[in-house]
Amino acid sequence: MRKIWKNVYNWGDTEKKIDSTIEHHINHFKHLLGIQGEARDLPLNSNAQEEVKLAKKSRLTRQVLRDLMRFVGSDNVQVDDFSRARHSFGKYYGDILRMRMGKFANVPDAVVMPRTEEDIIKVINYCNLKRIAVVPWGGGTSVTRALEAEKGGIALDLTRNYKDILSLNAEDSTVTVEAGILGPELEQYLNERGYTCGHFPQSFEFATVGGWLAARGAGQASTGYGRIEDMVVGFRAVTPAGLISCGNYPAASVGADIRHFLMGSEGTLGVITRVTLRVRRYNAANASLKSYMFKSFEEAVTAMREMMQSQVMPPHFFRISDPEETEIGLGMKGKDKGITGAALNMLGFRQGGRSLMYAIFEGDPAQVKLGVKTLGRIVRKHRGLSLGSYATRKWLEQRYSSAYMRDPMMDAGIRIDTLETAVHYSNLTQLWQAVREYIKRDGQTLCLTHISHTYETGANLYFIFVSPMLAKDELAQFEKFHRGIVQVFAANGGTLSHHHGIGRLVAHLLDRQHSPATLQAWRAVKKTLDPKGIMNPGALIFKK
Amino acid sequence: MRKIWKNVYNWGDTEKKIDSTIEHHINHFKHLLGIQGEARDLPLNSNAQEEVKLAKKSRLTRQVLRDLMRFVGSDNVQVDDFSRARHSFGKYYGDILRMRMGKFANVPDAVVMPRTEEDIIKVINYCNLKRIAVVPWGGGTSVTRALEAEKGGIALDLTRNYKDILSLNAEDSTVTVEAGILGPELEQYLNERGYTCGHFPQSFEFATVGGWLAARGAGQASTGYGRIEDMVVGFRAVTPAGLISCGNYPAASVGADIRHFLMGSEGTLGVITRVTLRVRRYNAANASLKSYMFKSFEEAVTAMREMMQSQVMPPHFFRISDPEETEIGLGMKGKDKGITGAALNMLGFRQGGRSLMYAIFEGDPAQVKLGVKTLGRIVRKHRGLSLGSYATRKWLEQRYSSAYMRDPMMDAGIRIDTLETAVHYSNLTQLWQAVREYIKRDGQTLCLTHISHTYETGANLYFIFVSPMLAKDELAQFEKFHRGIVQVFAANGGTLSHHHGIGRLVAHLLDRQHSPATLQAWRAVKKTLDPKGIMNPGALIFKK
Repeated sequence: MRKIWKNVYNWGDTEKKIDSTIEHHINHFKHLLGIQGEARDLPLNSNAQEEVKLAKKSRLTRQVLRDLMRFVGSDNVQVDDFSRARHSFGKYYGDILRMRMGKFANVPDAVVMPRTEEDIIKVINYCNLKRIAVVPWGGGTSVTRALEAEKGGIALDLTRNYKDILSLNAEDSTVTVEAGILGPELEQYLNERGYTCGHFPQSFEFATVGGWLAARGAGQASTGYGRIEDMVVGFRAVTPAGLISCGNYPAASVGADIRHFLMGSEGTLGVITRVTLRVRRYNAANASLKSYMFKSFEEAVTAMREMMQSQVMPPHFFRISDPEETEIGLGMKGKDKGITGAALNMLGFRQGGRSLMYAIFEGDPAQVKLGVKTLGRIVRKHRGLSLGSYATRKWLEQRYSSAYMRDPMMDAGIRIDTLETAVHYSNLTQLWQAVREYIKRDGQTLCLTHISHTYETGANLYFIFVSPMLAKDELAQFEKFHRGIVQVFAANGGTLSHHHGIGRLVAHLLDRQHSPATLQAWRAVKKTLDPKGIMNPGALIFKK
Repeated sequence: MRKIWKNVYNWGDTEKKIDSTIEHHINHFKHLLGIQGEARDLPLNSNAQEEVKLAKKSRLTRQVLRDLMRFVGSDNVQVDDFSRARHSFGKYYGDILRMRMGKFANVPDAVVMPRTEEDIIKVINYCNLKRIAVVPWGGGTSVTRALEAEKGGIALDLTRNYKDILSLNAEDSTVTVEAGILGPELEQYLNERGYTCGHFPQSFEFATVGGWLAARGAGQASTGYGRIEDMVVGFRAVTPAGLISCGNYPAASVGADIRHFLMGSEGTLGVITRVTLRVRRYNAANASLKSYMFKSFEEAVTAMREMMQSQVMPPHFFRISDPEETEIGLGMKGKDKGITGAALNMLGFRQGGRSLMYAIFEGDPAQVKLGVKTLGRIVRKHRGLSLGSYATRKWLEQRYSSAYMRDPMMDAGIRIDTLETAVHYSNLTQLWQAVREYIKRDGQTLCLTHISHTYETGANLYFIFVSPMLAKDELAQFEKFHRGIVQVFAANGGTLSHHHGIGRLVAHLLDRQHSPATLQAWRAVKKTLDPKGIMNPGALIFKK
């Protein structure tokens, strides 16, 4: 019950069984990587498997804890080792690896779970006065080391008590929620009333609305519903310099838009509290699922680009798997060498070139019909073949499952992690090739790439790299490898991140993305909103 | 030739004749306001009509002028009274009125016209060193007093030499230009190649791309093409703290997005130089023009809202005239009391209630067809009547002409000005009524209102108010009246401005829109990028 490992494993879903599909996929990866039998030299420290024992006790005085309890209620302040340990890491590969090793670092001194915005204001004002560090906590799904308590202090966890739905405004098509609400709770509420939010990041099941904003994320349906910043109508944030209320109008020309500093601030400027999001009418029966095979990645990308630039409303979900991901996907379904593989080969859709496209259109039925027709025409122009709905239906069923594969794969001695970027179409192929080349320098690494977020001027590229774990020095080797990939992004016109954020993982490269004067301005905003540097110290560019 | 009045009149188009339509419209306004004969007591000072003579000579030393000439070329620095006077005001009603009176204030000491970004960097660095104020100049169409040289210094006019089109990237669907280019030059270049930018503010003929960004504007087709911030892919800005390059990726999650501080900064942070905009394929033949009459403003707004929330791609241009604007429009066309008016009355579209909707769909022909069909269905549901394309075609022909009416109207003793806001649908009618009530307190004021920029959650409201000019104290009375309107916006959930910006006109109300901590953060960015306060001093919140 209090074993940290149980809480980490499977995204923290200790009840979830590894289903036969995942098991099958893992065996396929083992086969591809030439791994036989069980894991090699994989430490699973007793501190992970047994009850957590932290080396250091909470450094907060009794008086401070009493004060915090006074603000949020005595049940809502935790100082036990398990709670503190559980709030010291996210879902980065290195985090999971450290948990396997039972290595805890940057642990908060207490976990505080406010009930209201007023609670949050009291806690922030108090921590500012006492110079106690605060790391705002949503679902804890950061894959960029955004959640570490470098200076101790408190983890401000909004998920227990601060998750009410405040109002649904049908006329304005907006919903207002408390930031600690999880995706599924919000979506269920909306679905029951005929609406959707349309934001489905991979972490959907565990991430909070506040976290969506704080990380400036994008969901799987971003092509149709937009990124989180396109959905946000307005929100409030509690900063050490005071409460900020921003937005809550359809559009404006009133100078600086502070929302674009708070979104993506990953807890370094304040705590996002009350959020108003645009919603849309939703009827699952209107969705149309399509999949298409192309003879080459380049043709698939060209077709995607033409759809995005067609001025016909594009699909809500729009994806392409590159040849390696397509092939591994077919292999997992046993379709690479069977009748499907043979038929595809015969039709000129050859292994190593063929690329699979997925599309889901939603919303108004006539608009869906037009989209499907338009995309079909573009696909045929680029020698693509309609495969019906099967592949997309399968993908949709397993849309959140790949996150569950990581831990069992590590059990089997396989490292799996991801990095993602965004780039204009004219640089896309070049960047894709350069990253693959870098990754493939280690001959034993599989590199599965997809495009999953598409725009008129370009798209993201999402790289999944899979290799055998090293018996020694795994974390250090991996970090070096990881940094190299982001450097290749930057060298080829790609962003450091498309939707994962910065955290502490790519912060050292921020000058590749932002001009020196931009970084200065950003630091000035930090200094103004958080003059004592209590908010998530050490994250982003705000190192001491 | 050097008469300032000639340069101001008719948007500065001294060749343009007042056509019979405008004359007809003006007579109609005179009739409605009960004004007979010619203007009353309208001073047209000799300083306006004759060669300009400024009271004060340029305060820049010969050495400074020589240095500036060295940076930008000797032909590109002007210190004559006419050039300086011409760069001391924009297109706000009060500006035009002051020009009529020959009252010059806040005049720059020189006009500097850089040729390259390198020139701009040299000038800004030099002015920063010497603490010389700089007001960046585009087309000079600000209606918010954004362009005044409060501290003298230089007007940095980009329109003469800094207006090249640098590249059109068909693959990415982007165009990169120098910021001083005017709308028509860019649009003609794009149209010849089968593209459009899609940004058509009322000031289109005279405004620059840099100005579009600096004022964070929205064009008449913003419902389809987006606001300027939706079109901007990336840009560069020269600030006293250094060159900022920002954006130039399809999307990113890399922390703060400084573009949303520079856009809308109205020259207070730096000079926007090189701009990359998204463009779209364009074929004029695909456009479908529609107009509809509704029995009430409320029904028209509901139909517009349902279209925006339908998940079918909405019209690119989407407008509603409120009952008073509808009636005056019909009256100008002589259709209010004739057969059309009678027929409309008979059908229940009665004067005082009836509201006209305009829609233009562009782009893909099948998408256009679907849009027209969907809107037609929604219109019928709300008792609207299709009027064919006539009204919209007429509007399109005269889309920029209302700006040309202002000066001849002032000749006739009529004051005409506009203010605009944006508000969510659930507050829209209330705000509309409150503003009308305020404006109508002066019984002699006509108030024509339209919605011209529409969103899923709300829309703008654009108020045109027309009244007889006062013989005495016109400017002071008008300013008081004007401030009152913006206060009613703020009190009813509206923004201070939807696309006109802030300048010096609504700056005193910024705390109604932004939280104190936001204003502090904004000032910190100013202090960082422009530590000596040389950039457009006194504009926005940056008063000394």
